[in-house]
Amino acid sequence: MNKIVLACDLGGTNLRMAAIDREGNILYRTKRDTPKSDRADEIVRTIVEQAGECREAVRTSGCVEAIAAAVPATVSVERGMLLKSPNVPCLDGFRMVAALESELSIKAMIENDANAAAVGENWLGASKGFRNSIMVTLGTGVGGGIILNGEVLRGVDGTAGEIGHICVEPFGAPCGCGSRGCVEQYSSASAIVRLTHLMEPQYPKSVLQNKPRLSSADVYDAGKNGDELALEVFRQMGFYLGISMADLVNTLNPEVIVIGGGAAAGWDLFIHHVEEQIRSRAFREPGLRAKLVRAVLGDDAGILGAARLAFD
Amino acid sequence: MNKIVLACDLGGTNLRMAAIDREGNILYRTKRDTPKSDRADEIVRTIVEQAGECREAVRTSGCVEAIAAAVPATVSVERGMLLKSPNVPCLDGFRMVAALESELSIKAMIENDANAAAVGENWLGASKGFRNSIMVTLGTGVGGGIILNGEVLRGVDGTAGEIGHICVEPFGAPCGCGSRGCVEQYSSASAIVRLTHLMEPQYPKSVLQNKPRLSSADVYDAGKNGDELALEVFRQMGFYLGISMADLVNTLNPEVIVIGGGAAAGWDLFIHHVEEQIRSRAFREPGLRAKLVRAVLGDDAGILGAARLAFD
Repeated sequence: MNKIVLACDLGGTNLRMAAIDREGNILYRTKRDTPKSDRADEIVRTIVEQAGECREAVRTSGCVEAIAAAVPATVSVERGMLLKSPNVPCLDGFRMVAALESELSIKAMIENDANAAAVGENWLGASKGFRNSIMVTLGTGVGGGIILNGEVLRGVDGTAGEIGHICVEPFGAPCGCGSRGCVEQYSSASAIVRLTHLMEPQYPKSVLQNKPRLSSADVYDAGKNGDELALEVFRQMGFYLGISMADLVNTLNPEVIVIGGGAAAGWDLFIHHVEEQIRSRAFREPGLRAKLVRAVLGDDAGILGAARLAFD
Repeated sequence: MNKIVLACDLGGTNLRMAAIDREGNILYRTKRDTPKSDRADEIVRTIVEQAGECREAVRTSGCVEAIAAAVPATVSVERGMLLKSPNVPCLDGFRMVAALESELSIKAMIENDANAAAVGENWLGASKGFRNSIMVTLGTGVGGGIILNGEVLRGVDGTAGEIGHICVEPFGAPCGCGSRGCVEQYSSASAIVRLTHLMEPQYPKSVLQNKPRLSSADVYDAGKNGDELALEVFRQMGFYLGISMADLVNTLNPEVIVIGGGAAAGWDLFIHHVEEQIRSRAFREPGLRAKLVRAVLGDDAGILGAARLAFD
């Protein structure tokens, strides 16, 4: 009988689940709104309902053996517990694995979402075949997952991989984490909007002037049309991302750095600035070694990575 | 028969060797000047002579099984080759392992000196008992060794662990590595002297004014006596070291950070600034986890670490 796992990606907005086989084929998928609740059991109930739907859908295809959830939190993999979950705070300290196992009667596991995405890209995506890779996700924040010698680096408390909070400006913009000048404040999708507003006064002719509900996609579109404000924003965004990547190249000597998330769409406007900083700041040999590649799995990286961890 | 290895620490100034047993006892030691030569074979000849002296000295104590050398270079452990050796350039690309094995007829190996020191402190020193540790050596430069899950992190080319070249000031002081604003420019022993000279004009009453051949030890002595220039130098030195350590706490989530090297002598003047930056910049859980401890093995960390690697 074909072995199947359920993989869930719990985001602040959407709760996505899929039934996935050992080759990474997505046999069935479902998506709901993440319950806007302050109770963990409502989130569990939604997951359980989705799991029932997935199981029913693949009933004749194989045997569902486990469920793995990618969660927006630091995680104790061993204790099956979310430690700190800034975007879904009711899950702080929640023993998700015990709850899912008792509700579903199959083996459950959890993983940090950025780590799961790194594993997904490493299994079936942009870093396939490499044993030492780093994945950076440029979304609302900057997420990170580090894979060394084929293993996710979790650190002693499961909090490793917080690449977004590498400091690139010691007296820079305050960050939600409590520090200042984190790369998240310069290179995330939100940072692209922030930098645009910050520099607007210097670019009175920019098409981005006074644009309502500005998004990073708007800035990219303007940059593609040669708007100087947009180009300067992507220059700074790539400059600071490059500094943090050079730090990682010098400390970890990886084979490949995968860049994903919404702001990766601006790739052609920022990537040469990232490359320039790595070339001018990192040691020569590891700097030449580290390939910069764009993520290919999009939103599926997290569920595929979770599935892979469940199979392992 | 007692098993013994020879461990060598090849510095820019001294070439130190010891015969060491499985418990880490140093049975015999010898020290020479590192040959000021542009020929690798002169360095090999000196090592071979020292090895002969060590073997003779422990002839009745046990059987010498291997030699391990800690070298001031990036290293390909697998190929037994030094890649880049900035302070002993004649060794760039030199196949040290093959040379030593053919001269000595025992198994040979090499390791980067900062990695060897990290292993030494982990075996018998300040990080004993921890599986995830970082060692930072504050000397002429800032060296680094990272141990994760009990293994030295070498990276794919053997160049990992270059903690000294984490960028802490994006437009900061030029560094010998070609980048700018590396922590080495703010927190090494040389940086303490550099910062003192830089800030002298603002502290006309400092005892450090116009002091000939200023050393980091002079600055420390002045600081202990309350000299404000010296205290400000150590504040900045600790501030920037703390930023780089917070980066590593966030990305690697280690159990312990060991600080060694000559400038670690200023511990009581800088460590609270390091702690303050980790507390205010790193995530709470890994920040609380990471103990800051002072190295205990001094100059022996490298040879003990090399010996441990030879026994493994």
